[in-house]
Amino acid sequence: MNILITGGAGFIGSHLCDALLKENHKIVVVDNLILGRIENLNHLIGLESFHFIEEDILHINKMREIFKAHSFDMVFHLAANSDIQKGGKDPEVDYNLTFNTTFSVLQCMKEFEVKRLFFASTSAIYGETSENLTEDFGPLQPVSNYGAGKLASEAFISAFSATYNIQTWITRFPNVVGERFTHGVIFDFINKLKANPQELIVLGNGEQNKPYLYVKDLIEGILFVCNNTHERFNVYNLGSYSRTKVKEIAQMVIEEMELNASIKYTGGDRGWIGDVPEFKYDLSKINELGWVAKINSNDSVRIAIQKALGK
Amino acid sequence: MNILITGGAGFIGSHLCDALLKENHKIVVVDNLILGRIENLNHLIGLESFHFIEEDILHINKMREIFKAHSFDMVFHLAANSDIQKGGKDPEVDYNLTFNTTFSVLQCMKEFEVKRLFFASTSAIYGETSENLTEDFGPLQPVSNYGAGKLASEAFISAFSATYNIQTWITRFPNVVGERFTHGVIFDFINKLKANPQELIVLGNGEQNKPYLYVKDLIEGILFVCNNTHERFNVYNLGSYSRTKVKEIAQMVIEEMELNASIKYTGGDRGWIGDVPEFKYDLSKINELGWVAKINSNDSVRIAIQKALGK
Repeated sequence: MNILITGGAGFIGSHLCDALLKENHKIVVVDNLILGRIENLNHLIGLESFHFIEEDILHINKMREIFKAHSFDMVFHLAANSDIQKGGKDPEVDYNLTFNTTFSVLQCMKEFEVKRLFFASTSAIYGETSENLTEDFGPLQPVSNYGAGKLASEAFISAFSATYNIQTWITRFPNVVGERFTHGVIFDFINKLKANPQELIVLGNGEQNKPYLYVKDLIEGILFVCNNTHERFNVYNLGSYSRTKVKEIAQMVIEEMELNASIKYTGGDRGWIGDVPEFKYDLSKINELGWVAKINSNDSVRIAIQKALGK
Repeated sequence: MNILITGGAGFIGSHLCDALLKENHKIVVVDNLILGRIENLNHLIGLESFHFIEEDILHINKMREIFKAHSFDMVFHLAANSDIQKGGKDPEVDYNLTFNTTFSVLQCMKEFEVKRLFFASTSAIYGETSENLTEDFGPLQPVSNYGAGKLASEAFISAFSATYNIQTWITRFPNVVGERFTHGVIFDFINKLKANPQELIVLGNGEQNKPYLYVKDLIEGILFVCNNTHERFNVYNLGSYSRTKVKEIAQMVIEEMELNASIKYTGGDRGWIGDVPEFKYDLSKINELGWVAKINSNDSVRIAIQKALGK
């Protein structure tokens, strides 16, 4: 297929490029390189079946030119804000980068009659709840602008899929870690410990407990869903049942950095406003389809720490 | 309270003005009079506690001036596209009028620290399903851009409510009819019968079956929810259990117009793309709170037909 990947220079997007090229597709990446990094794609530039375009998805007329020039069979829409905390401080961030990017892509898909869409969604659309999260869970009450931007995206994707007959695959990611990632709790801890190797200050009580998924598992899961489901509208949670507490991450970072730092918790049940302190996916739907993550949450975190330290 | 009503010159908004003025609030209406009509407010203009401003909510700097000038205690955000079919033809309609209006209002509420919001939502956020729709129903898969715009609005309202501590009341409306309404199936039938009094052509098979709520019941329900619920985030379906089929509406319009027209159905289970042919609310939540609609669906439709005919 002739595939557009938005946000293809980002952490997850660049891994997806690698995987889709292995499946012998032709790839065009559109990325404005504000959050994405060209280094993530350096090994692909020059390949005949790979084309990189530096462009902002919100420039819809430029996007129209790209859609016109390439006759895409499918779009993998990954471009989004990736810093939830930042979006809490300025709602325009997720309004523009997480939601309006989606609307721009949808408009182009409608106009140029592209009939297949993959969308990278998130556990953040579910909001804060202690229940097991099935794909049909309700109510959906996101507590971050990032979660809101993704849910708003899903809303218009659902309507476009029904109204303009666009076959759609949505997978909802948990925290994803691994090679080429650029921020999040692991990076925060490494940076803090570089600044002060004696003591690590952890926001919250350390009990925040979430599943972390290794990026190569995630990519395999995305392709598994796209290749093995055939409804007009396909939605899957992606993750593993295992979870990792923030205090375990702190301990692993200290171990991997070979330090003797003490840990100090600021208290409270969450790191920052918009943080969801714990959630748990029900993964029966994807497990029954035949996919399970190969690497559990703790091992994913451990690998990610080692990669971040250049090990 | 000092209250802003967006879309206050519209069908529902103008009835809300009447009701809130009776509760002795001070009202400012902002409406660009594209969908709203000044005639709906003529009886209020000149009252000391009522102020009308003709402005487009998407002009955010103008909205900032209005928020700055008035120190609102609460916003009732009703401004939206009201023509679902139109939004299916051009997605920009609901993107702008249904969703971006909400984001503009939310931005102003955050900036000027207004801490109370009422939002007019809709059954269209649920999409197409035969199940009884509780407020916690999932998945939410709207099939119209109107439903998408409202769900996208709810998504950002949820995040703003949690992040910036805005107490929120959302009621999800079914079809609403009564004095001052301007379009929908009843008007379509009246106009068709005026053009051809012999035969009424009905889109679909006439079996579409939905609850219709009389506007005065709706307004009473909105105020009941706002006055009697006190959580940070309050969501209620509003409606009645009774429903009316499109073929019954056709019959009632013919009767009220005192015609002998035959009815011809175009066939298929829905009138147009994006139409949800039937839905059914579970109303236990609002009934347990102590509110029920006074007028059933058929009587609401009958009253609305009579009003539309100037009876």
